[in-house]
Amino acid sequence: MVAIDDFQHIIRTLKAQNRPRRMAIVWAEDEITRSAVAQAIANDLVVPTFIGCRQQILADESLLPYADRIEIIDATDGDDAAAKAVTLAREGRIDVIMKGMINTDNLLRAVLNKEHGILTKGTVMTHITAVEIPSHPKLLLFSDAAVIPYPTPDQRRAQVAYMVDLAHRLGLKAPKVAMVHCSEKVDAKHFPHTQNYVELIEFAKNGEFGECIVDGPYDIKVACSTAAMKKKHINSLVNGEADAIVFPDIEAANVFYKTLTLWANATTGGVVVGPKVPLVVPSRGDSPVSKFHSIALACALA
Amino acid sequence: MVAIDDFQHIIRTLKAQNRPRRMAIVWAEDEITRSAVAQAIANDLVVPTFIGCRQQILADESLLPYADRIEIIDATDGDDAAAKAVTLAREGRIDVIMKGMINTDNLLRAVLNKEHGILTKGTVMTHITAVEIPSHPKLLLFSDAAVIPYPTPDQRRAQVAYMVDLAHRLGLKAPKVAMVHCSEKVDAKHFPHTQNYVELIEFAKNGEFGECIVDGPYDIKVACSTAAMKKKHINSLVNGEADAIVFPDIEAANVFYKTLTLWANATTGGVVVGPKVPLVVPSRGDSPVSKFHSIALACALA
Repeated sequence: MVAIDDFQHIIRTLKAQNRPRRMAIVWAEDEITRSAVAQAIANDLVVPTFIGCRQQILADESLLPYADRIEIIDATDGDDAAAKAVTLAREGRIDVIMKGMINTDNLLRAVLNKEHGILTKGTVMTHITAVEIPSHPKLLLFSDAAVIPYPTPDQRRAQVAYMVDLAHRLGLKAPKVAMVHCSEKVDAKHFPHTQNYVELIEFAKNGEFGECIVDGPYDIKVACSTAAMKKKHINSLVNGEADAIVFPDIEAANVFYKTLTLWANATTGGVVVGPKVPLVVPSRGDSPVSKFHSIALACALA
Repeated sequence: MVAIDDFQHIIRTLKAQNRPRRMAIVWAEDEITRSAVAQAIANDLVVPTFIGCRQQILADESLLPYADRIEIIDATDGDDAAAKAVTLAREGRIDVIMKGMINTDNLLRAVLNKEHGILTKGTVMTHITAVEIPSHPKLLLFSDAAVIPYPTPDQRRAQVAYMVDLAHRLGLKAPKVAMVHCSEKVDAKHFPHTQNYVELIEFAKNGEFGECIVDGPYDIKVACSTAAMKKKHINSLVNGEADAIVFPDIEAANVFYKTLTLWANATTGGVVVGPKVPLVVPSRGDSPVSKFHSIALACALA
């Protein structure tokens, strides 16, 4: 396969696997979360375990058709629900955790808990977004618009590894990863991350990430436009057809995310990787379809 | 006036002033530069002094109709032409410098020359882009996608001042300036620039920049969408209607620039401010219309 076209492609891939993931939903007090979960059940992506908010779940019409497939565990509040979800994950009884109406920080506190948590010491936790742009021929994965502010070399190495792994799981044989910077010049003095890019490109050539192409630095236009790459006389196997993008920092990634959704009609999904199970941590403002896409992305990693 | 609609608005404003600016064009070896200048002459924005490339200029059909308005000064090469343009600026004989086929670095070397240059010691030099997005109701100014990698507090203060000045000259009475960051939280520890934003907002309130509204931190979506701002329950006079945007660093600004031109059909113009006269330093790949817009932007500042 040469490209992941869109989110439908991911959903079809997961359906074909016929292996619904066991997903814990923490404190699904809001309708949008429940309706996204209903859509995921309808598409056979998940078997849900709701933690907390029993009354709202039983009363939700969108979930009624799936009453026999739903498990509910009671919890006293969001923090209690988060702790219970993390316990289920630690015991191998669920594959994905999704948050409802609790702050991401509160869920992460349970995930990162030194005694009872599910992030192995030394493992990098980071965020991957997938974005579908109507005027672009393929889905783009990128990191990190939400969790790591200014990645260290080790964190950036993990970002490449996680995105290549996700692309492989989605069926891409040799994903193209572009390391983004405002210019094509490596400039170790003013932009140390460009020197780090050079190292990661070497690691990729040595097979560290499995089958993939990692190259850069490129600006985002060169990374995603064959014409722009040709105009600058750049020869690279990435060929302006990046499947995955590493941004220098959270500011650049966040601008990318928000600019595309505001002005290019893009739809997104996101997932936190690193913990024992992937985390779906949508923003409160995210649409039901965006939350559904995020669930699909997490399922692909579980 | 409540908004600068688009580049046509700027061009109409300049035409109405009936004061063509004296522009030196350094080494206009390429057709695109000459055709952008021809368009600027046709719109009565500039009276040109070409420096170098006499043969190409005399042979250029797009310039023929304006032969009587064109001055040509000979130069041995791009560097010589740059030095001569800077001398004319220092002597007050031109209002704008535009580069043709020389590297920006070479022009800047002449501009920054300690003995013969035109940047006063202690004056900040930075880049302003104007972007017209078809799906957005107003033109946006932003800084800095090209010159300053990681602005210091003093540089950021100058960026606000320059953009407010430009907006005033374009006829905006009280421009709205948004300070962009990946979230709305001020976090002095992890994101020191957000603390700097707070200081600049105070300076603005004290009248330092003249009539304007400066607020933030906002993500780019909140800065430019009233709906997004309302959804996050933010009250600000910026009201999701930013006229000008300060980005935290060159990486974020560059991603904004490139994402909009690749996926949102945006057109741009850019100008370097700080030296005695504004500089038009387009990229080689820029279209004729983008170079023309850049000239208009520089004229507005001259």
